[in-house]
Amino acid sequence: MKKNKKDYTPSWLEKEPGEKTFRSIFKWGAENLYKNPSSGFYSVIKQELRLSDTDFQTPFNTGCNIVENLHKTRIALKDLQEFENLVGRENICFDTYSRLKYSTGKSMEDIFNLRQEKIEDICDIVLHPRGRADIEKIVSLCHKKKIALHVYGGGSSVTKGLACPKGGVTLVLNTHMNKVICFSEINHTITVEPGMMGPEYENLLNQAPEKLNAKKSYTGGHFPQSFEFSSVGGWVVTLGSGQASSYYGDAYDLVVSGEYVTPAGVFKTSDFPAAATGPKINDIMKGSEGCFGILVAVTMKIFPYQPENAKKFTFMFPDFEIAVNAVQRISQAGAGMPSVLRLSDPEETDIAMKMYGLNENFLDKFMRFKGLIPGSRCLLMGQTDGEKSFSISLFKEIKKICKKNKGFYLTGFPMKKWLKGRFSDPYMRDALNDFGVLIDTLETSVTWDNIHALYHAVRSYIKQHPNTICMTHASHFYAQGTNLYFIFITKMQNSDEFISFQRGIIDKIEENHGSLSHHHGVGRMMAPWMEKHLGKNQMDILRAIKKHFDPNNIMNPGGLGL
Amino acid sequence: MKKNKKDYTPSWLEKEPGEKTFRSIFKWGAENLYKNPSSGFYSVIKQELRLSDTDFQTPFNTGCNIVENLHKTRIALKDLQEFENLVGRENICFDTYSRLKYSTGKSMEDIFNLRQEKIEDICDIVLHPRGRADIEKIVSLCHKKKIALHVYGGGSSVTKGLACPKGGVTLVLNTHMNKVICFSEINHTITVEPGMMGPEYENLLNQAPEKLNAKKSYTGGHFPQSFEFSSVGGWVVTLGSGQASSYYGDAYDLVVSGEYVTPAGVFKTSDFPAAATGPKINDIMKGSEGCFGILVAVTMKIFPYQPENAKKFTFMFPDFEIAVNAVQRISQAGAGMPSVLRLSDPEETDIAMKMYGLNENFLDKFMRFKGLIPGSRCLLMGQTDGEKSFSISLFKEIKKICKKNKGFYLTGFPMKKWLKGRFSDPYMRDALNDFGVLIDTLETSVTWDNIHALYHAVRSYIKQHPNTICMTHASHFYAQGTNLYFIFITKMQNSDEFISFQRGIIDKIEENHGSLSHHHGVGRMMAPWMEKHLGKNQMDILRAIKKHFDPNNIMNPGGLGL
Repeated sequence: MKKNKKDYTPSWLEKEPGEKTFRSIFKWGAENLYKNPSSGFYSVIKQELRLSDTDFQTPFNTGCNIVENLHKTRIALKDLQEFENLVGRENICFDTYSRLKYSTGKSMEDIFNLRQEKIEDICDIVLHPRGRADIEKIVSLCHKKKIALHVYGGGSSVTKGLACPKGGVTLVLNTHMNKVICFSEINHTITVEPGMMGPEYENLLNQAPEKLNAKKSYTGGHFPQSFEFSSVGGWVVTLGSGQASSYYGDAYDLVVSGEYVTPAGVFKTSDFPAAATGPKINDIMKGSEGCFGILVAVTMKIFPYQPENAKKFTFMFPDFEIAVNAVQRISQAGAGMPSVLRLSDPEETDIAMKMYGLNENFLDKFMRFKGLIPGSRCLLMGQTDGEKSFSISLFKEIKKICKKNKGFYLTGFPMKKWLKGRFSDPYMRDALNDFGVLIDTLETSVTWDNIHALYHAVRSYIKQHPNTICMTHASHFYAQGTNLYFIFITKMQNSDEFISFQRGIIDKIEENHGSLSHHHGVGRMMAPWMEKHLGKNQMDILRAIKKHFDPNNIMNPGGLGL
Repeated sequence: MKKNKKDYTPSWLEKEPGEKTFRSIFKWGAENLYKNPSSGFYSVIKQELRLSDTDFQTPFNTGCNIVENLHKTRIALKDLQEFENLVGRENICFDTYSRLKYSTGKSMEDIFNLRQEKIEDICDIVLHPRGRADIEKIVSLCHKKKIALHVYGGGSSVTKGLACPKGGVTLVLNTHMNKVICFSEINHTITVEPGMMGPEYENLLNQAPEKLNAKKSYTGGHFPQSFEFSSVGGWVVTLGSGQASSYYGDAYDLVVSGEYVTPAGVFKTSDFPAAATGPKINDIMKGSEGCFGILVAVTMKIFPYQPENAKKFTFMFPDFEIAVNAVQRISQAGAGMPSVLRLSDPEETDIAMKMYGLNENFLDKFMRFKGLIPGSRCLLMGQTDGEKSFSISLFKEIKKICKKNKGFYLTGFPMKKWLKGRFSDPYMRDALNDFGVLIDTLETSVTWDNIHALYHAVRSYIKQHPNTICMTHASHFYAQGTNLYFIFITKMQNSDEFISFQRGIIDKIEENHGSLSHHHGVGRMMAPWMEKHLGKNQMDILRAIKKHFDPNNIMNPGGLGL
């Protein structure tokens, strides 16, 4: 869509947040990077939310004030001294800003609080451990003194996973604990410290010949939207999924083994590719969100890096039911899986077309002529990866299935557009939030037999709220089901109103038999639903394990609802 | 190899074992089916074990005596009455034969005992529960009365998984609990009772259009060598692997969810294809070998049944190192995995050639000419499966990798021979045992960087024993490693000597960093190594879970080394 000269451009706040400000904590990503809604997206928002240009004149609650050092640490002086002795003066801080920063993630609730300059549930000390030895001493001291202990990886939690309602200590793992421990080209594994961040991890593997003395290049295959601002350890302890997970696997599948420091001792789980020696300890630990112990080393699967084999594709389907049928067929064909697969519902499709400026051009007209009508049509994007002949053969099979299911091939172009924007899209949230427009997401895994019922129930609930956009896509595919990802956008300035709206959505997901989360994790946000979701008998199992590891309830207390 | 007229044929004992005899318990498979070593295999055995035809004249310790009803049950009369009230008179027995039968698996140690008519570690009552409700009442009664409780699925355990050192109750699940609970074609899952046996399960899926009112045919993809005599529940609670696991997955991967009855309550784990809601309860239960609770319903993944797409292949490699390199390349190519892949070491290759009558023919001479020399050459067999273009493209890729690694293509013929015999080969054990020749197996999973070290250490240990065949193959492949399967054959009549030899092998596996088991499970056989293998801190985790479920230690007490 060409910009009309008369088009109004909101006063997007493109300035660096400033040191030690609230904004510097909640702003997504790099300090000096911005992404504002395209004019197409901006018009959609105005139209759907019934806003006008006047609503986008003056940013407010921008959090540009400095965090004053007002909140005294609640840890006794002699204990502070002990912690300082453990990690060194340069690796401890207890000023309000640091404590707030490392107790805050990127959930809409976090952002509401920071924009209102509300300081809640922060830790008392921030420590930057230098290695496993420091962590062992810290865990032991916290256990002895009954001081709550939390972990900060990359800080991208959208489930309030970093909140410290009991105060205590937060360990920041990406400061020092971000190194390679061991690389095994023959086993296709790499062992790293948990604080290594996504881009460093992936670059290291892509450049393995130069950096790791390897024969070939590799990929970790894990690209969550938070890729640039999340850590390898964070992926594992919260069970994240990357956008290419349908081929490479979720973090759940990618982690071979881990070394954990717990109040009940230190151990390293085994590296066997499979074993029939009882329930796997690795499984008991992964996804434990710091409630059982602290991950200090993690061994991950790696894959040949062969981007030259990738095949990108896009299809348009006449409606959601037909499109779901096609992706189900793809997932159950037994032909291997594409890395990326992403099916947008009609609302997301229409908005995407406008965002990418693809509406009302010749192609759009042709599609309408072919019966692919806005309000009904659905966009499927994807990419095959892996070994060359596999990628090509799967690409052909997908084309075949899509065509059989009335899919209209749109080349790889929209997929390329999406790939380009996929890590920068989250920047738009700050721009919209500055004008009181909230944008938030919830996701759930569903079995195929439940996808439509859940989709309609949750979507109806969201759309009941007046002037609200609800875009939904299915992504992360399995033979047994998929993940439904709901993005909702509405004008809402009151955080209580937001929380009640959001909780209503979670209730709807739970009532309609979706999982509480597919890849965002539990955090403090989902914790209150856990007992109902799993049932008492299953929660009791997690409680028993928790009690074994952490009898004093100091490890991320309240996490996982335990 | 043509049979020479002068060839001696041992007096193989081809007669039905007779009702209530020891032999009827240990004999593999169907009552009236036999498989004797081919003349080629018989000559190899004589040659390698330094035996002569005279050693094969009179079978001994054949276990043809009837099990006398001598062992009184140790359960109090009023408790017996209570159990009878729960399940009905027709579903309880406490005669010695039944108790022995359902407390005995197919381990070499079990067979030694039965051939020597030694009755050890048997249960006191056998119950045939009619469904979940019966099991709930039985668990509750055993918990209250502190009576040990065990489960018998198909009875094929080779790890003494059925022994009852504390006596108590054994539940037989394949009598009544063998039905379909729910079939979901859309989710590609089937939920069955745990006692459904392999062939029934697979036939049901293959004939899904007729039997389950499905649109298509399916396969469970799980074909352990014990396929015909093992149960779906048994596969899951012992973490079995089928011969096609490299494509379909191990039982670990195949199980979606389970319903468990435990002393701490009943629950059903969730069916989500993935979820980020903490450690998965399903993972905590699978592989628990009856120590935590009893699996009463299990939901498994199913796959399109498309045998017409299978591509069979066989290659001969000049030596084991080159061959391992080839299978590692296949497993790490990112092209998907073949269903079956089985690489024999030189000793197994030479014996297989003789068993299949492939040695000393024209092809053999040609191979020798090409530098594929007995004592060094290695046979790789396999099959690709799945969707047609996937199977073909992978087949081509495998051919390419094998040829690049000096593999000589032998068509699919030997693979077809192996497929034909794969479920009947175990029958040979009884024939050999009748003449004091033991044949046993141990298996372990290894990472690629450790395969040669472990292979040589374990093999050297076995070969140190005089006149002993040691055939090894790698099967079940992963990007990170494989499974090494050791088959050892020697003349040994003393069970203490056998146990000490076998323990020595397990020690060697453990010392050389192999897993205690890849797919046989733990049972009573591996239990003594568990603490050393996992380390105290990890065993403590399993102990804590055990204590939660089973504070009175009645659920398969001593299982998993707990």
